[in-house]
Amino acid sequence: MDFKNLVKEIQEFKGVSRKSSIDNVISLLKESYNVSGDVVIDIGDDASAIDIGNNQVILLAADGIWGDIMNVNPYWAGYCSVLVNVNDIAAMGGKPLAMVNIMSISNDEIYEDLLNGIKDGCLKFNVPMVGGHLHPDGEVDSLGVAIVGIAQKDKMITSFGAEAGDKVIVAIDLDGKPHEMFSLNWDTTYDKDAQLVQDQITAVQYLAENDYIKSGKDISNPGILGTLEMLLETSGKGAVVNLEDIPRNESVEWVDWLRSYPGSGFVFTASEEKCDYIKEYLAEYSIEANVVGEVTDSNSLFLNYGEEQAEVFNQEKNPVFIFK
Amino acid sequence: MDFKNLVKEIQEFKGVSRKSSIDNVISLLKESYNVSGDVVIDIGDDASAIDIGNNQVILLAADGIWGDIMNVNPYWAGYCSVLVNVNDIAAMGGKPLAMVNIMSISNDEIYEDLLNGIKDGCLKFNVPMVGGHLHPDGEVDSLGVAIVGIAQKDKMITSFGAEAGDKVIVAIDLDGKPHEMFSLNWDTTYDKDAQLVQDQITAVQYLAENDYIKSGKDISNPGILGTLEMLLETSGKGAVVNLEDIPRNESVEWVDWLRSYPGSGFVFTASEEKCDYIKEYLAEYSIEANVVGEVTDSNSLFLNYGEEQAEVFNQEKNPVFIFK
Repeated sequence: MDFKNLVKEIQEFKGVSRKSSIDNVISLLKESYNVSGDVVIDIGDDASAIDIGNNQVILLAADGIWGDIMNVNPYWAGYCSVLVNVNDIAAMGGKPLAMVNIMSISNDEIYEDLLNGIKDGCLKFNVPMVGGHLHPDGEVDSLGVAIVGIAQKDKMITSFGAEAGDKVIVAIDLDGKPHEMFSLNWDTTYDKDAQLVQDQITAVQYLAENDYIKSGKDISNPGILGTLEMLLETSGKGAVVNLEDIPRNESVEWVDWLRSYPGSGFVFTASEEKCDYIKEYLAEYSIEANVVGEVTDSNSLFLNYGEEQAEVFNQEKNPVFIFK
Repeated sequence: MDFKNLVKEIQEFKGVSRKSSIDNVISLLKESYNVSGDVVIDIGDDASAIDIGNNQVILLAADGIWGDIMNVNPYWAGYCSVLVNVNDIAAMGGKPLAMVNIMSISNDEIYEDLLNGIKDGCLKFNVPMVGGHLHPDGEVDSLGVAIVGIAQKDKMITSFGAEAGDKVIVAIDLDGKPHEMFSLNWDTTYDKDAQLVQDQITAVQYLAENDYIKSGKDISNPGILGTLEMLLETSGKGAVVNLEDIPRNESVEWVDWLRSYPGSGFVFTASEEKCDYIKEYLAEYSIEANVVGEVTDSNSLFLNYGEEQAEVFNQEKNPVFIFK
């Protein structure tokens, strides 16, 4: 394997580089983030958290789907709009409650497929789509979904909690296959029993509520290492990771695997003594978890492969998502 | 005044007719509305409500802004995206907690104005925009916003509670002016002290929590009568309304007034003995409330003007939003 090339592919991956455009939004909206005084987490995590008292927080997240996927496979676009949102809440150790959508449809042919995809996603994950807004004069096909969830304030998993010395865990459901039209979608939910898919969400919630996890994030567009780097940036830490310790379905080459969006995949950090239990517990829910490295007090994410080492991300030189 | 023509203008108003396209969405998504079993209200109201125990519900709503307004006045589009969402929560008798947005921007020039409008809306209403999703390769300018709020389960104001014999109340802040570019935006918030604007939201919450209101809805795109009709359709009732009892700023002609989107405006139904207090209480917050008619056991919304009467909406012939 050409390790140097692999690292370059990861660094130049669109899923990573696209995140930087968020910067502007953040600098302009910063002033309004906590006007009301009850926001516990605003930007920088999978979901925001708002204190509602009694040690409860409401989690709120949003994701949008545009363009190609809407036209090429509107059913899958609808299905994924549910999946990505549910994973945002799961990654916080929360329980997903409900979603709303904001749609614009220019092409009536895709409409029914899109809605059927949404519906099947809701049934698979057991999270209702309770309303929304349809733009009736759509010139473009776009779908935005927002999700609300609930978590215990002092137990939720954030991206802020990584500490030097924590072990880095990558946890992915390996029982799946690349989607036939979107090869970087590592689909593990569509053909899987709905109960098991829902149990995967609840399993993360259980680990959160029982203090097993110090920080975490769901693996999304930036892929395994891009997502880990976002977590590390939010915590102001670095890490050293061993490539070959990352759980992988061997039918997928590393370069694709590291850029894939898994149906159920997370990066966590945890104290060393918690790691064995996390591995065993998640294995019951078809999620393979492995310790892949350690959090450091640096600004760099280093990747080891055999005798080789490369700095994949550096928070000064090539951050994925620096939001300060 | 040509009353027949006025009625025709209301019936043919785009704000009313556009609602019917929602039908399809509802029939397709219906199956997923309450998969989880804790949804108290799904479609048919300003916001959906999810039971989180302890007599609390989480309210969730979404609205989208597309096209002209984004390009003509992106600042106002951003500001209004906050206003319309906050009013959705207010109309449920809830407390707005936080918002997220989903944006697609094709034209960088409008970007900063849009975000500044959002920010100023957040500061005006004291509701934070806590995150969101920016589509980085936008081919179109669109803005979706979702809002989450909280209310007491047994006190929230819904569109389902209107009963025959209830008085119909229209409550509008008359201290405002038509927006200079969008004449049907009856703007009462932009130049108004932020505390008073926020107190208007809290005032509705107070009336809800103290059992003054039986049903209600915020006046939005369908205008005063279109919004009332939506409420009546949801409750399966009709009404008779006297045009000249509707609170109006006399600088605006009836035909425009009835199609306007007010900064703070609601239709409520209430028992007769509660009406005086509602009027007095809202007057303290610059909202003029008046009894304009009565809920009936029919399928029609009749409008009286002097000796004339017209059936403006009929739930069989020209509903605004039948969602069954």
